[in-house]
Amino acid sequence: MLSEASVAEINRPKKQKLRKKPSGIVTLITDFGLMGEYAGAMKGAILNVNPRCQVVDITHQVAAQDVLQASFILKNTYPYYPVGTVHIVIVDPGVGTQRKPVVLKKEGHFFVGPDNGVFTFVLSGGKNDGYEITRQKLFLSPLSPTFHGRDIFAPVAGHLSLGMDARRLGPRLKEFIRVEWPRPEIKGKQLVGRILFADAFGNLITNISRGEYGPQIGDRPWQIKGKSWRIDRLQETYPDVHPGQPLALFGSAGLLEIAVNRGNAQLTLGLKPGDLISINRL
Amino acid sequence: MLSEASVAEINRPKKQKLRKKPSGIVTLITDFGLMGEYAGAMKGAILNVNPRCQVVDITHQVAAQDVLQASFILKNTYPYYPVGTVHIVIVDPGVGTQRKPVVLKKEGHFFVGPDNGVFTFVLSGGKNDGYEITRQKLFLSPLSPTFHGRDIFAPVAGHLSLGMDARRLGPRLKEFIRVEWPRPEIKGKQLVGRILFADAFGNLITNISRGEYGPQIGDRPWQIKGKSWRIDRLQETYPDVHPGQPLALFGSAGLLEIAVNRGNAQLTLGLKPGDLISINRL
Amino acid sequence: MLSEASVAEINRPKKQKLRKKPSGIVTLITDFGLMGEYAGAMKGAILNVNPRCQVVDITHQVAAQDVLQASFILKNTYPYYPVGTVHIVIVDPGVGTQRKPVVLKKEGHFFVGPDNGVFTFVLSGGKNDGYEITRQKLFLSPLSPTFHGRDIFAPVAGHLSLGMDARRLGPRLKEFIRVEWPRPEIKGKQLVGRILFADAFGNLITNISRGEYGPQIGDRPWQIKGKSWRIDRLQETYPDVHPGQPLALFGSAGLLEIAVNRGNAQLTLGLKPGDLISINRL
Repeated sequence: MLSEASVAEINRPKKQKLRKKPSGIVTLITDFGLMGEYAGAMKGAILNVNPRCQVVDITHQVAAQDVLQASFILKNTYPYYPVGTVHIVIVDPGVGTQRKPVVLKKEGHFFVGPDNGVFTFVLSGGKNDGYEITRQKLFLSPLSPTFHGRDIFAPVAGHLSLGMDARRLGPRLKEFIRVEWPRPEIKGKQLVGRILFADAFGNLITNISRGEYGPQIGDRPWQIKGKSWRIDRLQETYPDVHPGQPLALFGSAGLLEIAVNRGNAQLTLGLKPGDLISINRL
Repeated sequence: MLSEASVAEINRPKKQKLRKKPSGIVTLITDFGLMGEYAGAMKGAILNVNPRCQVVDITHQVAAQDVLQASFILKNTYPYYPVGTVHIVIVDPGVGTQRKPVVLKKEGHFFVGPDNGVFTFVLSGGKNDGYEITRQKLFLSPLSPTFHGRDIFAPVAGHLSLGMDARRLGPRLKEFIRVEWPRPEIKGKQLVGRILFADAFGNLITNISRGEYGPQIGDRPWQIKGKSWRIDRLQETYPDVHPGQPLALFGSAGLLEIAVNRGNAQLTLGLKPGDLISINRL
Repeated sequence: MLSEASVAEINRPKKQKLRKKPSGIVTLITDFGLMGEYAGAMKGAILNVNPRCQVVDITHQVAAQDVLQASFILKNTYPYYPVGTVHIVIVDPGVGTQRKPVVLKKEGHFFVGPDNGVFTFVLSGGKNDGYEITRQKLFLSPLSPTFHGRDIFAPVAGHLSLGMDARRLGPRLKEFIRVEWPRPEIKGKQLVGRILFADAFGNLITNISRGEYGPQIGDRPWQIKGKSWRIDRLQETYPDVHPGQPLALFGSAGLLEIAVNRGNAQLTLGLKPGDLISINRL
């Protein structure tokens, strides 16, 4: 798991105003995809409770059932929203079973979703208040056993966006499910990390954070090698190398990224999410 | 076509408030895709009339020119929105020909689009008021013969979201185009349905509704068989079987669904939209 | 480059009201794709400054680093939005280098993004005021060298949507980067154009504008030929030919389009973006 330090590392707006009122904004992170009715039905169920809130799509393209990816996207987006925003995360392979529907309150933000690890990074560092959502009169009825996003989480988020007190949703919860995050390992002169994601540009985002590992990469000669390429220094931004050349930098989420300037590292370098990557100190 | 019973079957918010005022929300269902300018130009043409309305994407990824799929998505989303919402559906292969631009009013919702079958499910069951849209002074000019979504339907929806009376848009219409829906058939001991869609998880949604066929599946032994799999009972939710196992359940839209717990039925079971599926009563 | 005449050609809402106030709308055109956190983080950074503005997705699927395509989409969408709207365009392969962050004001609209050609079509025709964005106290801090969309352009757009005077963002700029646009050529009896884009339907949009080249295509016999197809007249709309037949028309952006009625020209006709297309006058 990323340390709390690295969670705190990302850019935050300078003057986060502490509003007492809800922001009127509800965000969505799901694995529903963009075809079909799922996202649209959820948005309706939010707006039916609060027609004046603004529903904002963060993404509906989390890899199916990838709780960790959803947690990562949430961590990299929520701090940019105004305090008082309600963030719904629906990646819910256990829908209809005993996993709990929950609401978390932290730093003035509200987080709504299943207690299955999607809030892993929100939970690390700092205080939070959590509640199990049991107040059935807020749910749609009849309740579909396969779509709690629409029938439980959406109306609850609508009520939170109107200012409902989270304590009215159900009993206090102290423990939440967290998922394990593959951590980089130091093996002799090697720092072995893992490629977590590729973005739309083919940039490969690793689990090596600037806070914990930056100094080790910064201060001594090192090398990352592939079949026909080699990277041996850290850059600030993509155009710091010639077009078509590979590079490494700490990206906008504070993690080491392997990229190709004006190119697609995933297609060009023979690396993909899940692959290990070794930084060899010379 | 699905019976009116099955249309009424889906979950509805409990306290649908009957607002007299428009909700300030305009939803979009199109086959425009997400690249290019079409959806963005339409949103502008709505907001130019009513900068205060909220434009909500339901989906822009209806299969190209698939009027029936659009109608199905509309049926499964509109009831969740607040009364007074304007729903635009643009799947319009006949754009620029004699097919009529229409507005429908039903249960306090407004529906705007071409009269080509996209409103098939909205039309079945209950009263509705319909009008042909002929009031040209609301249209953008010059009128593109290939993009009525932007030049006719968007500004009309903007005016409806401001409270314009639908009767001011044109003459009353009594008959609307409806498209045929493949219905399940009972052949001896078999109930033969069809797979209509696959969702982003690979769940296969059939045309067998809980209201009409649920009892037949519920009360006697039955079986659905594929090359290396068999399903012989109804589940409530996906995790009711072990990961990787196939299952059948009535999904969130009230239709029989073939799925694989934490897997992708479309990839695993050798079935795809359009395929027939036989439920064999034993 | 398209002439100024052709830029002015597109449909405009009839009564564009000249509001003095901002419209409260911020639009987004990016090449971020729809997976991951980039678009969602930007939306947060806008809303954190102005929680009451409406953030509208035009598209996040500009081809990676395709400045020209972004410029084309902007040209075909911004005029439909209310005056006072802020349009952000982030296709920014030079992020973190000396390319300037800029704001342009034209026809009452605001345009925010990198000075790298994304505003090519906004710049042609009519007056505009432009400023380099240098007012660092508006930026997020620490400033990521790889994500100015989130850390510079989003908060600046938020402030513009609240009514901040563009002159307060930095010094006046008189010259902006423009990118070259492949123009059609006349070679003897041939008019040789190029296919610029394919839309979601497979319609092929060329660089031949109605304003400049329409008369040449309209008044004499001509022919476009492919392996097993031929087009020899202009149509008004897709259903003017039988299903499956190829056709040519001037589309909703005023450009010549090769299409197949109820079909996909890109798949059927053996043409793709980048290909040359010859109109042979007979």
